[in-house]
Amino acid sequence: MVPYRISKVLFGGDYNPEQWPREVWHEDMRLFKLAHVDTVTLNVFSWARIQPSEDTYDFADLDEIMNLVRENGLNVCLATSTAAHSAWMAHRHPDVLRVGQDGMKRSFGARHNSCPNSPTYRHYAPLLAKKLAERYGDMGNIVAWHVSNEYGGLCYCENCAAAFRVWLRKRYGTIDAVNRAWNTSFWGHTFYDWEEIVPADFRSEEWSMGGRVRTNFQGISLDYRRFMSDSLLECFCLERDAIRAVTPDIPVTTNMMGLYYELDYGKWAKEMDFIAWDSYPSYGEPANFNILRHDVMRGVGGGKAFWLMEQTPSVSNWHQYCALKRPGVMRRLSYEAMARGADTVMFFQMRRSIGACEKYHGALIDHAGRSDTRVFREMAALGEELDKLGDVTLGGTTDARVALIFDWDNWWATSLSAGPSADIDAVSELARWHAALLDMNVPVDVVGVDAPLDKYAAVVAPMLYMVKGDYDETLRGYVRRGGTLIATSFSGYVQENDLVMPGGYPGSLRDIFGVWVEEIDALPPDRVNGFVYNGVRYPARLLCDVVHTEGAKALAHFETDFYAGMPALTCNDLGEGHAYYVATCPDEALCAALLGDVLKAAGVAPIMDTPRGVIASVRENERGRIVYIINQTDGEQSVTLPFAGRDLLTGTAYAAGDAAALAGNGVMLIHID
Amino acid sequence: MVPYRISKVLFGGDYNPEQWPREVWHEDMRLFKLAHVDTVTLNVFSWARIQPSEDTYDFADLDEIMNLVRENGLNVCLATSTAAHSAWMAHRHPDVLRVGQDGMKRSFGARHNSCPNSPTYRHYAPLLAKKLAERYGDMGNIVAWHVSNEYGGLCYCENCAAAFRVWLRKRYGTIDAVNRAWNTSFWGHTFYDWEEIVPADFRSEEWSMGGRVRTNFQGISLDYRRFMSDSLLECFCLERDAIRAVTPDIPVTTNMMGLYYELDYGKWAKEMDFIAWDSYPSYGEPANFNILRHDVMRGVGGGKAFWLMEQTPSVSNWHQYCALKRPGVMRRLSYEAMARGADTVMFFQMRRSIGACEKYHGALIDHAGRSDTRVFREMAALGEELDKLGDVTLGGTTDARVALIFDWDNWWATSLSAGPSADIDAVSELARWHAALLDMNVPVDVVGVDAPLDKYAAVVAPMLYMVKGDYDETLRGYVRRGGTLIATSFSGYVQENDLVMPGGYPGSLRDIFGVWVEEIDALPPDRVNGFVYNGVRYPARLLCDVVHTEGAKALAHFETDFYAGMPALTCNDLGEGHAYYVATCPDEALCAALLGDVLKAAGVAPIMDTPRGVIASVRENERGRIVYIINQTDGEQSVTLPFAGRDLLTGTAYAAGDAAALAGNGVMLIHID
Amino acid sequence: MVPYRISKVLFGGDYNPEQWPREVWHEDMRLFKLAHVDTVTLNVFSWARIQPSEDTYDFADLDEIMNLVRENGLNVCLATSTAAHSAWMAHRHPDVLRVGQDGMKRSFGARHNSCPNSPTYRHYAPLLAKKLAERYGDMGNIVAWHVSNEYGGLCYCENCAAAFRVWLRKRYGTIDAVNRAWNTSFWGHTFYDWEEIVPADFRSEEWSMGGRVRTNFQGISLDYRRFMSDSLLECFCLERDAIRAVTPDIPVTTNMMGLYYELDYGKWAKEMDFIAWDSYPSYGEPANFNILRHDVMRGVGGGKAFWLMEQTPSVSNWHQYCALKRPGVMRRLSYEAMARGADTVMFFQMRRSIGACEKYHGALIDHAGRSDTRVFREMAALGEELDKLGDVTLGGTTDARVALIFDWDNWWATSLSAGPSADIDAVSELARWHAALLDMNVPVDVVGVDAPLDKYAAVVAPMLYMVKGDYDETLRGYVRRGGTLIATSFSGYVQENDLVMPGGYPGSLRDIFGVWVEEIDALPPDRVNGFVYNGVRYPARLLCDVVHTEGAKALAHFETDFYAGMPALTCNDLGEGHAYYVATCPDEALCAALLGDVLKAAGVAPIMDTPRGVIASVRENERGRIVYIINQTDGEQSVTLPFAGRDLLTGTAYAAGDAAALAGNGVMLIHID
Repeated sequence: MVPYRISKVLFGGDYNPEQWPREVWHEDMRLFKLAHVDTVTLNVFSWARIQPSEDTYDFADLDEIMNLVRENGLNVCLATSTAAHSAWMAHRHPDVLRVGQDGMKRSFGARHNSCPNSPTYRHYAPLLAKKLAERYGDMGNIVAWHVSNEYGGLCYCENCAAAFRVWLRKRYGTIDAVNRAWNTSFWGHTFYDWEEIVPADFRSEEWSMGGRVRTNFQGISLDYRRFMSDSLLECFCLERDAIRAVTPDIPVTTNMMGLYYELDYGKWAKEMDFIAWDSYPSYGEPANFNILRHDVMRGVGGGKAFWLMEQTPSVSNWHQYCALKRPGVMRRLSYEAMARGADTVMFFQMRRSIGACEKYHGALIDHAGRSDTRVFREMAALGEELDKLGDVTLGGTTDARVALIFDWDNWWATSLSAGPSADIDAVSELARWHAALLDMNVPVDVVGVDAPLDKYAAVVAPMLYMVKGDYDETLRGYVRRGGTLIATSFSGYVQENDLVMPGGYPGSLRDIFGVWVEEIDALPPDRVNGFVYNGVRYPARLLCDVVHTEGAKALAHFETDFYAGMPALTCNDLGEGHAYYVATCPDEALCAALLGDVLKAAGVAPIMDTPRGVIASVRENERGRIVYIINQTDGEQSVTLPFAGRDLLTGTAYAAGDAAALAGNGVMLIHID
Repeated sequence: MVPYRISKVLFGGDYNPEQWPREVWHEDMRLFKLAHVDTVTLNVFSWARIQPSEDTYDFADLDEIMNLVRENGLNVCLATSTAAHSAWMAHRHPDVLRVGQDGMKRSFGARHNSCPNSPTYRHYAPLLAKKLAERYGDMGNIVAWHVSNEYGGLCYCENCAAAFRVWLRKRYGTIDAVNRAWNTSFWGHTFYDWEEIVPADFRSEEWSMGGRVRTNFQGISLDYRRFMSDSLLECFCLERDAIRAVTPDIPVTTNMMGLYYELDYGKWAKEMDFIAWDSYPSYGEPANFNILRHDVMRGVGGGKAFWLMEQTPSVSNWHQYCALKRPGVMRRLSYEAMARGADTVMFFQMRRSIGACEKYHGALIDHAGRSDTRVFREMAALGEELDKLGDVTLGGTTDARVALIFDWDNWWATSLSAGPSADIDAVSELARWHAALLDMNVPVDVVGVDAPLDKYAAVVAPMLYMVKGDYDETLRGYVRRGGTLIATSFSGYVQENDLVMPGGYPGSLRDIFGVWVEEIDALPPDRVNGFVYNGVRYPARLLCDVVHTEGAKALAHFETDFYAGMPALTCNDLGEGHAYYVATCPDEALCAALLGDVLKAAGVAPIMDTPRGVIASVRENERGRIVYIINQTDGEQSVTLPFAGRDLLTGTAYAAGDAAALAGNGVMLIHID
Repeated sequence: MVPYRISKVLFGGDYNPEQWPREVWHEDMRLFKLAHVDTVTLNVFSWARIQPSEDTYDFADLDEIMNLVRENGLNVCLATSTAAHSAWMAHRHPDVLRVGQDGMKRSFGARHNSCPNSPTYRHYAPLLAKKLAERYGDMGNIVAWHVSNEYGGLCYCENCAAAFRVWLRKRYGTIDAVNRAWNTSFWGHTFYDWEEIVPADFRSEEWSMGGRVRTNFQGISLDYRRFMSDSLLECFCLERDAIRAVTPDIPVTTNMMGLYYELDYGKWAKEMDFIAWDSYPSYGEPANFNILRHDVMRGVGGGKAFWLMEQTPSVSNWHQYCALKRPGVMRRLSYEAMARGADTVMFFQMRRSIGACEKYHGALIDHAGRSDTRVFREMAALGEELDKLGDVTLGGTTDARVALIFDWDNWWATSLSAGPSADIDAVSELARWHAALLDMNVPVDVVGVDAPLDKYAAVVAPMLYMVKGDYDETLRGYVRRGGTLIATSFSGYVQENDLVMPGGYPGSLRDIFGVWVEEIDALPPDRVNGFVYNGVRYPARLLCDVVHTEGAKALAHFETDFYAGMPALTCNDLGEGHAYYVATCPDEALCAALLGDVLKAAGVAPIMDTPRGVIASVRENERGRIVYIINQTDGEQSVTLPFAGRDLLTGTAYAAGDAAALAGNGVMLIHID
């Protein structure tokens, strides 16, 4: 891991001068200064320009750009341009073209268009990265390498099929082991030769239903997803290694996309020098959902600070309805990122292009080219504010006492499951627990199944359907040593190949929770069961388990249907700890109630109390502890500070017990005395 | 027709020991005994295991399994395993792979994956069937051969195109005859050479709209469906004949799927020794709809008893929301099957697999592997009950006085029609008449257009759009000789090639009903016309005919629109009989009212009166007459028995006029004194 | 332009005797006479019959038909049959087969099935046209040539790819110019060789979302649409030229389809001798929408009279619900067509075919073959009425003082735009202004961006997003010279390649309207802003601009959101004229209010006042001025005539100020004294 070296919150973002004549470049430099921009991400999509043919490279423009921005004192996040191959490459080397799930070979177009197992791509992409490192590595102002861009998209071509077989051979060793892993005795799928194996796609095992991929063989589809995530990761590593060989001291990253289904970011993070991600909350989604993405991104990076690589200054262009970010919202979202771990506030994009699909995506510099637009003024004000903040927030981490478990394999497995309900969504199950913690102002880590747990007072593993390897041992040990573990319906069913662990659900977790789940009932959206916990009634939706306690005590019981009176919520004492089982998909209120009780018992206090819609987060570095108080609502809100400190943005000092008012979308960064 | 020989209602189902280690097999034998299982369906998906290569067969496992189940006194329904070809076959002989409607060649995967005109498949499938017959035909405990599994799915490959041309040549003789049959002078489609003909698919004449296939040429699409149904049927016959040559005394069947669109089961039934089918009612569908499927299945088999080959003990895995069958429902549905003609109660599956898409489908033995689950206990109780019943119900038939006409060609033709309404659904039209009869407890046969009609007091032919051959003569003769015939809107339009019979609708049926339908008006779902019949108002939906009587008398008249005052319901006297024409798509209430009047006039009495939700059915064999009274509701219901008899399940004797209570989902089998 | 020569409103339509035996032909002649049919469109889909092979032509049937109809005094609109190639051609020359957007090669089937760049098609189609012209050109009764039929549908094959490159080379000259036009520096799309360019389809830049095509590169997709429209137009021209060389005095046309997205009818119209179109209003669409189509069709033809080539006598067959045209509706729609410019009233079809997808499409002669059907009687009555009218209405034009601008390029560009809203629909924006004018009984021209404007008192250019060439100069000059121009949100963004004109929206129109649009906010359907104009509140939906006036005065201001108080409606005085900018997508009420004020100021009076649902139109020829008053409602309506005249249909004379009653769907043709 090569650390990044910065002395303030970086402010700037994607800049594409290659789309503009030179006179505009100089105007841009002037405008950047006005806006307090200090960092630009360059060269994201210039492969075709830099390499006009197999044997020719032309760096003249990029040289000029690099010199210009250095002369203007700007840091550079230098991209490798490999997120879109060139038209000549597609024409001369069709192996770079992807094949879709339906078997259709793509022609030239779009971006993220290369087959990750294309020999051509794997030859030319790292070669370009190496050339860029050699040419610009010594410029002195490169703060990070930005490999490719928003990796994603899958391929189903013959090259991928062949690489899949190699991947399988490496993972399983023998074809017999593959047959066992995939349970191929079902439906007569026994393979005798590696060559008989084909990609999992719409030509073989999969189909689309209601926009969701379904499969006949979960094991095959799961492994193909793993293989594809690994294939793309290999492409990243090839470029990273080519760069590292030249500039070992400059960190290398790529920009992730939060809760992105196709890539196992938990695995990717281990290969990146630091985490960077692009934050594009959708219009109308709950305000907490983007916080969840921040926490997931911080979590895959092991809790370290990350970069906000992209957000839009105002409007996105691909939404159904591209609503403007209202005044103050861009600033508020920027501080939200910082509150959850960001060390940079960067944007797509510095200047709006005039043609193609992103020309109506927000930018610092609009088509009008003026510095007096609302968006420019808001950004310049934020830039100035961040200038003043200096390095005080940098590198801060959050010491959470609660963990949420989130695992890409489990996400894939639950989404691919044939039954019990097509509405199963592991992220929704995660999000409700997260929302409850956010509303309580309790810091939380979202971690994978490789994270140590002993530091946490409570661990919630919502819908942990797949228990890989000996993760049951991890959980069992955690509880035995005094931890509190919470699980929910549809947990503990399968091992890592999506094979059921026979003997009764929740499989290897059964003794931990002291329950046996005999049956699982799927409820259509218009049917709700319910239960009473601590005097309050909560709904039970989507899934309801028919549970028998085996040592656990029942804390609540289903109200209706043939399993009325059977446990809806149980607690098992194991060693020094406790294991709660929620036998349904709980609503946020139940999550909050149960977490409230658990955390109270464990002595975990919230950062502070806030009105609904105001969230408090905390980060700490060697320079101290900062509480970020953010008003996600449009109206003014008042908070009472339980600690003394100074607002870094206004300089106002507060004593413990003081009240403070936050305007709509207002922010305070209280540096604790 | 080789009859099956059984001495009790078979109880058991699909069993896949090849997915399990041997120690589990012995545990299964123990559990089967506990559950009163007497029959297992084996070898449904083992082709890849049994035939590891072109020249090698390995029956070792199957030998062991067959011996084990025989030693344990179990009957075997022995499947031929050809419903899924092997991966090696797909790899080495790509002609077995299907091509989709969109022209996409499939790769290896799924099941029901073979091109029915693949030379490879047609070689190896019957060969395997023959080898199985030779090897196991003498075991003594094979009660039936189970060829392939749930035949279905279509192919559009070059081999199918070639076979289609052969099929057409056989059907039409000359290319000119094809041109006439398809009316190819429309849109310049004249064919001059057989080779110019291509499959009807999304590359040629068809497209999908709202999930429904539309076509430019009904005649072509219709013939391609016929050809495909025939192609798959040929595959069945090839295996059947290979088996029959070895074991002429063991009956051969395959498992049908009720109202399955793609196969003309009326034609298939003629090639099967007996009917078997898989019953999977959907969550939330009306309770009567599955009874309709039973009646259709009994009907294609000429009224003989059939096998319930599969149902789920509790849950299916492929529904949107996989709700559990509530306590008592599995038993109730089992007796419903028997009430409508089943001689077996068999299930998919005996033991849940641990991997792939059916691992969350219900089973006798759950992943827990226990005999004390709710599902196991319910099944064991039913097994015990059926043991006690012995042979008393076997082979019983139902002497119905009412027939409903249902014909696959007509279903296809109406579904493919361009106009008058995209909501036309021949099955819905059938289902309302059937529901009315079911509510009245009047036994009904659902028969094809080859069935003799004279035994029926009334015949309803809902939406008989296509009148094939001289079926008008059949209907005319039936009425003339005293029958009562009821038809509805969109009847009598076309002959067997979907060519309109000119001269005025309903074509060749016009004199029978004594009406001329001048126009047909399609109503959007939010528009309803209406009419009054016998003092009660009924709605007219979907289609309304503009009708002129030509000898018939009008019994009701439309209320509104420009055809207000014109006939909505007519009756024509023809010879000794009567022909009713309903000039719209009637609701169930009109069906009930009209049938009530017609049956009263014909002296057809219901089996008995029951409260709504309780249905009475009757079967009779040489051992007597049994009335099945089934409470489809969750609440207790009371019935008054109009006959004396003894409940076979409880032994209770009843005198005529006695009241009896049925618990929710309760069942009585009254053996009439 | 070769003018057509007719002496009455032609009455008749598509006739396909080739589908019938000869005895039917003679019956048809008898029935045509009864119905007053004077014109038949022949030979629309007979290519396969006429040309049975590459070297053989067989005109025997057509000779006989042509002679028959001439003997019976019928005019012929003679089609060239090239809208569907033959099966043998598809089989022997696969280059005639189209390739779909998804890359799937079609097989034989359907119609409009030929690749427009197929060498085979381009050879044989004009050759057939030439042969037809040579053979029948002298018959004397051919009133027009009808080339192909309803041109449409696109192709994405290799031949089209190659032709696209030729088209681009012709348009742009160099590959560098292409790169600039498409802004290929975005996403690294630089092309170095023409061969690298591929069609814009689902394999390259496009995908489908919610039934709408989306693209990554608007410039590429736009040019591919232009190229495809041009390719099909070339096919038309090839046939037209082949015909003209033989029969220079017979006009050549093809039947258009109103607001048909795929073809730039504005460009097509310039190649046609006169406009003909097929009018099929959808069930449930507002009555004014079909009038809009008439006006668009008259507009592309430069305001000249056009032919109504097809409408259905009663029912269409392809709608979801094929409702009958109620009594009087067919007649009313026929006069609506005449009121807006039609010189013919022609139908699809004369006789219903018995097979394939149009057998349930309405016809003069139904399957019953009778002359006493409702439809036959209504048509015969109309035929008789038109006979009596004679030539009095022919050639009449409408002198409109208001123009609406509609441009296909703009339609394509707005529909392809990525942002600001997926609900953008240029036709809806047009339709509301048109509806307002129609309700006011103010004649309107719908014209393209090549039309001179000075004759108009007011010009409305709704959502004129794309400003091609120097069209800003046209608009500026028009206003300066005293015109009134109205524009709406999302105008003036891009030049002809969909490249944004930098400097601030609305680009080159900015000085005309005296406003700068800083931002554009997209509103989801459930959000509405509003503003008050002249004391009345109007809603603002879909898009709201953040507008700064630069010389204009604000007439209304937004009510809510952060741009509350900013202008929602402005007026700029420029030279002698005025330019209004509506900073949102207005509803019809605002259109009416603003137009009312503008027209009042300009002294433009409506034709007359009518109750809602009654529309007045006017046409004038050398024989006088006729006001068409049409009751689009089912109920009786009363109008007061502001002029003296005589109803051409009844002969009744009216003095100015007289009241007249119109029955439901009733029509008056007042010949002004």
